[in-house]
Amino acid sequence: MKNLNLYQKIFNMSYKVAIIGATGAVGNKLLSTLIERNFPLKEIYLLASNRSEGKELKFRNRKFIVQSIEKFDFKDVDIAFFSAGSSVSAKYAKEAEKKNCYVIDNTSHFRMDKNIPLIVPEVNHSELDKMRGKIISNPNCSTIQMLVALSPIHNINRIKKIIVSTYQSVSGAGQLAMNELGSQSKAIIEEKALSIESFPKQIAFNVIPQIDLFMDNRYTKEEMKMVNETKKILDQSIDVNATCVRVPSYISHAESVYIELENDMNLTSLENALNNGEGVIYSSSDYHTPLDSTGQDAVYVSRLRRDLKKENAFNLWIVSDNLLKGAALNSVQIGEALIKKKMV
Amino acid sequence: MKNLNLYQKIFNMSYKVAIIGATGAVGNKLLSTLIERNFPLKEIYLLASNRSEGKELKFRNRKFIVQSIEKFDFKDVDIAFFSAGSSVSAKYAKEAEKKNCYVIDNTSHFRMDKNIPLIVPEVNHSELDKMRGKIISNPNCSTIQMLVALSPIHNINRIKKIIVSTYQSVSGAGQLAMNELGSQSKAIIEEKALSIESFPKQIAFNVIPQIDLFMDNRYTKEEMKMVNETKKILDQSIDVNATCVRVPSYISHAESVYIELENDMNLTSLENALNNGEGVIYSSSDYHTPLDSTGQDAVYVSRLRRDLKKENAFNLWIVSDNLLKGAALNSVQIGEALIKKKMV
Repeated sequence: MKNLNLYQKIFNMSYKVAIIGATGAVGNKLLSTLIERNFPLKEIYLLASNRSEGKELKFRNRKFIVQSIEKFDFKDVDIAFFSAGSSVSAKYAKEAEKKNCYVIDNTSHFRMDKNIPLIVPEVNHSELDKMRGKIISNPNCSTIQMLVALSPIHNINRIKKIIVSTYQSVSGAGQLAMNELGSQSKAIIEEKALSIESFPKQIAFNVIPQIDLFMDNRYTKEEMKMVNETKKILDQSIDVNATCVRVPSYISHAESVYIELENDMNLTSLENALNNGEGVIYSSSDYHTPLDSTGQDAVYVSRLRRDLKKENAFNLWIVSDNLLKGAALNSVQIGEALIKKKMV
Repeated sequence: MKNLNLYQKIFNMSYKVAIIGATGAVGNKLLSTLIERNFPLKEIYLLASNRSEGKELKFRNRKFIVQSIEKFDFKDVDIAFFSAGSSVSAKYAKEAEKKNCYVIDNTSHFRMDKNIPLIVPEVNHSELDKMRGKIISNPNCSTIQMLVALSPIHNINRIKKIIVSTYQSVSGAGQLAMNELGSQSKAIIEEKALSIESFPKQIAFNVIPQIDLFMDNRYTKEEMKMVNETKKILDQSIDVNATCVRVPSYISHAESVYIELENDMNLTSLENALNNGEGVIYSSSDYHTPLDSTGQDAVYVSRLRRDLKKENAFNLWIVSDNLLKGAALNSVQIGEALIKKKMV
């Protein structure tokens, strides 16, 4: 995906883009990421519900006016980034597709649809070559960062089993949840009463082992997303065991990951694979925290070590900005892949 | 350990007890736990370094004066609870033992000494029957709560492998670390500069995958404590893979635990084992957070579920107050076991 700007300059192409859910935490990041990466924009439409119509958004001294999606015609748009919840994608994505607009959907709505590609560009951009429709699904944030880190290993030595425990920031639950962590923390410091709205229990100075709803098999939806999306994107034969936990950090998710490989390998080869991994920054001497990765594009990997007993098993610690690589950046990279592949 | 009070009343015995490190977070909990559990006290000595000599501690309107350990003679003491760091235990524990005083040591100093029992009363109190000296070691907080939860399972179906990721509160690093979480959080909310002293990086609104120092094998000391102490207490043949992580909660540690058992078993039998586990409160319908367990004696177990593929593998979520069952309460329970066994 490198040298996209040069490529654009030579061919002098640019695109009409829409962001659906522009007023949300990820929508905001989509706008800034498109501009910061010099995405070849001819026109940008910021869409949201009727409620936000007419609202002004500012970025780098430019003003953007939010339009209502209900009155919008997708026929003039080349690529639409959907990030306004599953119900909005369910209602409008097919309509956009019919008008010949590519949809890059950041909700879970189409992820497990076998006719719709689920893309992490560093891992499986080639799936785009086979697609027939115009809808592309962006995976769950926890899955994306795990697979960017693990795919360079899987490519040289098949991963058989993954056991992952997550440390997920509140921004994964949206802007209101971020505000709630702040207001709860303030209330506790000032010894005042607090209110609980975004999460099942108090999140400030606490840890909640539930993200999304529980399913019949006793796993949460978030945990099953990590299981099913990993299989769809990386390899159907990988067994994934996930525990998803919300922690009181604002941005960036961390993951404690144990992997069992088909064959044993030495640490140096594993470190080489990570060092050469696209989108990965690996450190053998230091580790990264959520704060270190906030606002950064990369997936950070550290704390690589052998299991003490099992020969082909290793641990690692994976951290990335869930609003960027986990959402907005990955979506924009899918858009860049469409351009590079001359699909749009 | 039940009916200890009745037992005491009948035999009319009571004991002279010392707390070493009385001014610290765990020392404080030792005092309150001894009193709240009606430990049969004849006399209580609160000891600390010269620096704290003469300091007054209050509990339930009673005043206690702190004495210097340097001038103290252990000959009048039946049981001494050490919780003032490894160097203090190294210097004074053997001296107390020589004066015929039982030492219950909450530091890591003697834990791996093969001549000294490492005790979680619910799990291995019978090791006390075989001891020759008078020093007993109290395990690491993360190990204690994990083994209280897992030993009822191990007793009916041998655990072969444990993979654990922890969510450990700052109180495990002491009172100053708790103050630092508060002051850092306040500084961030008020948008002021903050200072970092107790931890390698900012802990407020962050997550740090390092507890204690790194060892040559790339694991931290805290992680190796969980490995080695589990083997010593529960079973030498169990393989433990641990990742220890500090999170911005004040009190109570949480653990995401994956276990592989020798044989498959149904969930109901597993739930029965947990429901009957001494010191365990198991819930199948709800889960517990660090805040739920703070100030409580029990080890809370929830989120029990099968691995999606491997027949004999399960996940669970274990939470307990690290200052109580993880430290002070376990130490006091060891003292109660000595009394019950008529060893003191």
